[in-house]
Amino acid sequence: LRVAILPIGNELLDGRVVDTNSKFLGSELASLGIETTCILSVPDDLKSMLDSLRFAEKRANFIIVTGGLGPTSDDITREAVSEFIGRPLVMNNSLLEEIKDFFKRRQRAFNPINEKQALVPETATIIPNSWGTAPGFIVKKEGLTIAALPGVPAELKPMWEQTLKPFLSPTKKLFVKGFKTFNLPESVVAASIPELDGVTIGYRAQFPEITVKISGFDKDKVERAFDIAKSSVPRDSIFTEDIHKSLPDLFAHSKFTIAVAESCTGGLLGKLLTDLPGSSRYFLGGVIAYSNELKESLLGVTTLKEFGAVSRETAASMAKGVRGKADVGISITGIAGPDGGTPDKPVGTFYIGIDTNKGTETYHFFYPGLDRDRVRKIAAYEALNLLRKIVL
Amino acid sequence: LRVAILPIGNELLDGRVVDTNSKFLGSELASLGIETTCILSVPDDLKSMLDSLRFAEKRANFIIVTGGLGPTSDDITREAVSEFIGRPLVMNNSLLEEIKDFFKRRQRAFNPINEKQALVPETATIIPNSWGTAPGFIVKKEGLTIAALPGVPAELKPMWEQTLKPFLSPTKKLFVKGFKTFNLPESVVAASIPELDGVTIGYRAQFPEITVKISGFDKDKVERAFDIAKSSVPRDSIFTEDIHKSLPDLFAHSKFTIAVAESCTGGLLGKLLTDLPGSSRYFLGGVIAYSNELKESLLGVTTLKEFGAVSRETAASMAKGVRGKADVGISITGIAGPDGGTPDKPVGTFYIGIDTNKGTETYHFFYPGLDRDRVRKIAAYEALNLLRKIVL
Repeated sequence: LRVAILPIGNELLDGRVVDTNSKFLGSELASLGIETTCILSVPDDLKSMLDSLRFAEKRANFIIVTGGLGPTSDDITREAVSEFIGRPLVMNNSLLEEIKDFFKRRQRAFNPINEKQALVPETATIIPNSWGTAPGFIVKKEGLTIAALPGVPAELKPMWEQTLKPFLSPTKKLFVKGFKTFNLPESVVAASIPELDGVTIGYRAQFPEITVKISGFDKDKVERAFDIAKSSVPRDSIFTEDIHKSLPDLFAHSKFTIAVAESCTGGLLGKLLTDLPGSSRYFLGGVIAYSNELKESLLGVTTLKEFGAVSRETAASMAKGVRGKADVGISITGIAGPDGGTPDKPVGTFYIGIDTNKGTETYHFFYPGLDRDRVRKIAAYEALNLLRKIVL
Repeated sequence: LRVAILPIGNELLDGRVVDTNSKFLGSELASLGIETTCILSVPDDLKSMLDSLRFAEKRANFIIVTGGLGPTSDDITREAVSEFIGRPLVMNNSLLEEIKDFFKRRQRAFNPINEKQALVPETATIIPNSWGTAPGFIVKKEGLTIAALPGVPAELKPMWEQTLKPFLSPTKKLFVKGFKTFNLPESVVAASIPELDGVTIGYRAQFPEITVKISGFDKDKVERAFDIAKSSVPRDSIFTEDIHKSLPDLFAHSKFTIAVAESCTGGLLGKLLTDLPGSSRYFLGGVIAYSNELKESLLGVTTLKEFGAVSRETAASMAKGVRGKADVGISITGIAGPDGGTPDKPVGTFYIGIDTNKGTETYHFFYPGLDRDRVRKIAAYEALNLLRKIVL
């Protein structure tokens, strides 16, 4: 089965709305092992829609049209599909009753403009919509099937779940494994991993994470490729071997408690550590010591005069000062820029301090050429990665 | 001018990534008065890409290809465009130097795999990329122009701004005004604002911000429409009347200093307050009091037993406890979910406390139906909005 998705609506073309339906459907289809071969949006006019159906027909044997099922004059999905398959639109009376019923349940007067929504191409199978007034439908044209769903995500999603998803039973099961790296450019990750037989290797960069995803229909080949790919990348750059998990997941089942002292990251490390529910099991909290005054008053730092705020000594002192009853105290102090750099400590320099009952360690990092946002992100990720190593 | 957008990449078809670039470009083009006539994604293979270029050519005289400019074997935009316009790929040596230079600036060894990124179709004009290793290019084929941009939004956006936008901008001067709202759904904002003559109104939602952008060639009409649009939206939901400024900008020129005490947001408020350079002028830092223990030990909170961590009393006590030498102490405590809700205090409940030399105020909020990430974001934004009102 090859699927084409046709999201309808001028609001997608002029950027008023972001098309989340295609992402939803594409990802649902992929999880069924079904390939999406094209996503095509054109304006709300009959000729454009017929063009897009013709293009999609060449690339797919199943077309999902989303949107254009509303009651207004620019909703022309019904007309376009009807013309495309050469079957007239007919009034479906039981559907009309259901739409009238929907208005009754919401205690609103029925608007005759909505009668149009009970029109479907002759021979169509109805996809019921209990969440709105726009029913969907499925029609066939020789080897091709076309399904029409409303564009409102809150209607499209349950209609997909209840009707289309069961209808599109998977052919073969797709196996997916993957891992995430965090401090290498995509090109370096990709160059490290050889081409592997019988699997597809995908890369996705969302700074500072690179996700490496291996998929295929042969489970053994996927497993083997996963092992080869993983061992091709520097061990230190892999922070999770489960594609569905972000770093903080790793802490959830450890017995360590963590306290943070953040300067240049301003709270970002704490935010990342609390992104997932249940984080109170391992995260106690900490101090955002953005000003020197707070570094001294809340953390008892005494190294500022001699060594400066951005130094190994201050990182160590911040980590010690914040640990309290936690197992690990971790600190970040650095220069995120764009100002504040010096020849000795240019923008992109940061120190991380870690204090445990075994003593205090400090780490120096330098990431030149990154903007403020990225320096802060990579600093927080380096801290997460150091925490990961302690926890494991 | 009619534009077709071709977002390239299997990750768009299988739903790993949502295509925000097309929304960005569609909305930018609309604000220049340029129509987007199709958005078409196909898989990363040469035949599919040629098919999509052929389809786009029929609907547009300007094609923007996004993505597929990376260094790996599945990046084939260069090859596809080269074949489509019938011009070979040639190595651009000055581009190669620039890419090598990019590696040098980041203090990384140049990877030969990246050499491929200096290949461009013969006769191409280069679109420089200072933000990554994937330069873009513009080529012509008779009446058709094709521009290729990298798919990474952080590279695509500035390259659009600096090169493509000026290239496509009408000779007439376009006037743009706008404002940002933060606690209303896009549909409510859009429904509040009437259609206005002679201007284009664009909406951009990036939770929890909605940007309303009014553009047109007649300055007076834009000014008038801006005033009408602004007064159509509840005053309390507008947090900046300058479209280019985020909330923290407003604090930079005030004389107030701020300290934060965060529970459920875990550092997010501090992170947002320090997103911009120069934030040390107004932000002192604070405490991430995620655990009850730290609420007591670092903030001197004594209300936990009687009122609970999520209460007006604790919010007030946290704000008082953190203020110290700052002008404003601000606290957030709430239930971000998905667990931890009670009938009295369901998920989505949060309290904000504000302590100044005039006393302590507390505010109760309830946002039902949002996920953890969104509850935390809206809580941080409500805090920023309260800070805005104090500062103004």
